Amino acid sequence: MTGVGRVTLVGAGPGSADLITVRGMRRLAEADLVLYDALSSEEMRVYAPKARWFFVGKRACRQSIAQEVLNRLLVRYARRGLTVVRLKCGDPFVFGRGGEEGLALAEAGIPFEVVPGVSSAVAAPALAGIPVTHRGLASSFLVVTGHHEATYAPILDQLGPDSATLVIMMGLGQRARIAERLIARGWSGGTPAAVVVGAATPQSARWIGTLDGLGAAEVPPTSAGAPGLLVVGAVVGLAAELASDSASPLPQQHKGQT
Amino acid sequence: MTGVGRVTLVGAGPGSADLITVRGMRRLAEADLVLYDALSSEEMRVYAPKARWFFVGKRACRQSIAQEVLNRLLVRYARRGLTVVRLKCGDPFVFGRGGEEGLALAEAGIPFEVVPGVSSAVAAPALAGIPVTHRGLASSFLVVTGHHEATYAPILDQLGPDSATLVIMMGLGQRARIAERLIARGWSGGTPAAVVVGAATPQSARWIGTLDGLGAAEVPPTSAGAPGLLVVGAVVGLAAELASDSASPLPQQHKGQT
Repeated sequence: MTGVGRVTLVGAGPGSADLITVRGMRRLAEADLVLYDALSSEEMRVYAPKARWFFVGKRACRQSIAQEVLNRLLVRYARRGLTVVRLKCGDPFVFGRGGEEGLALAEAGIPFEVVPGVSSAVAAPALAGIPVTHRGLASSFLVVTGHHEATYAPILDQLGPDSATLVIMMGLGQRARIAERLIARGWSGGTPAAVVVGAATPQSARWIGTLDGLGAAEVPPTSAGAPGLLVVGAVVGLAAELASDSASPLPQQHKGQT
Repeated sequence: MTGVGRVTLVGAGPGSADLITVRGMRRLAEADLVLYDALSSEEMRVYAPKARWFFVGKRACRQSIAQEVLNRLLVRYARRGLTVVRLKCGDPFVFGRGGEEGLALAEAGIPFEVVPGVSSAVAAPALAGIPVTHRGLASSFLVVTGHHEATYAPILDQLGPDSATLVIMMGLGQRARIAERLIARGWSGGTPAAVVVGAATPQSARWIGTLDGLGAAEVPPTSAGAPGLLVVGAVVGLAAELASDSASPLPQQHKGQT
């Protein structure tokens, strides 16, 4: 019988296979088993060609199985002596529920490690030409999920106009309500705002405009299931200049308006 | 005469050479010239052994030359036809002034690209066992610089107790004032708080306690020049369990208190 294995929670980065870290790539190379949830991770199989790959996800980087079931799977496979990589979209600890997986492993006495990844909270705006901070424009940024009003409302209601760059992950469905809410709180309707969908993937698309137009912003229908986020703040106004390079992914389905 | 070259702003990640992205590593391999500012990047020379490496930094990831001078250097070398990598600590767009470099390049008509990196805003807490978000504890996080009261006070003053995880980068020197400020705003003195210094480097050290003790938190004297940040919020309470793995860098000079 083999000894206990180990689990590494690896951040896969925002989409493209080459935006994983070198450490993450090396952990994949050592893995017997990879549990992954990102569609874009399919391209990452090259890093672990001999491992068994188990898909535990669905679109937009959400898991398809209950967290408790997944936690038990991680423990079970590690107890069989396997070297397991749990490959997670973005960074394991940014809305990735990596903390819950880590706690379950700690409780079970399984050695585990976290390999941070490039979070789409910063990288999706960056690849769209939007720096979340910029001297004279923003010296702080807030990251929140936009799935549920009960989650984002309490924090957004505290922030006065232009007080920070707002990054609202998974906020596409609530973009009209979020824009209304901010304008009601005193934010100018002319505040630059962006929608970024499928960053760092071939389905990359973006919309650049202002809060006034955010609710009616057209999002490509094919990207409805892709991870998307909203960015609000003066830094969005830099996108036209900073995304001008041919090597940055240009919108493929919908051009920015600025 | 050669044609115009190009510049890539590459995020080096939080410290360790293997926390750069695969894309960043590949851009280094293609580079003729690397302008870098991180001490820890010295280990990254292996990725670009044939390039000329110019050090433009000083301790704690800050540049040693004026931004305008650096911008002109980037333009000048690209105009000589060189493939230039500007290697920046963490992510180029998280307090990295990458936006300013990008704008200078755009203005000069130099092709440029941004390669996002793992930001220490998320990775330094993660490597200390602190997830910036965690179900039931925090569904948003704010990142701000702690160098100057004029920068952090306006945003921190808006946030009620426990409303978000706070990540205060470069906030070591102001930790007493920041703790006082939050307590005066109604945050409990018992709110978990951490100091993380030199994350992902051999000089890694951390202190885990509460807001009440943050002002008097001992920071290893040798780490005074290393990049450090503060984390405030309930998620800090998970550090004892989530940093339990031997593969996570344990405090080398100062143990946590929890």
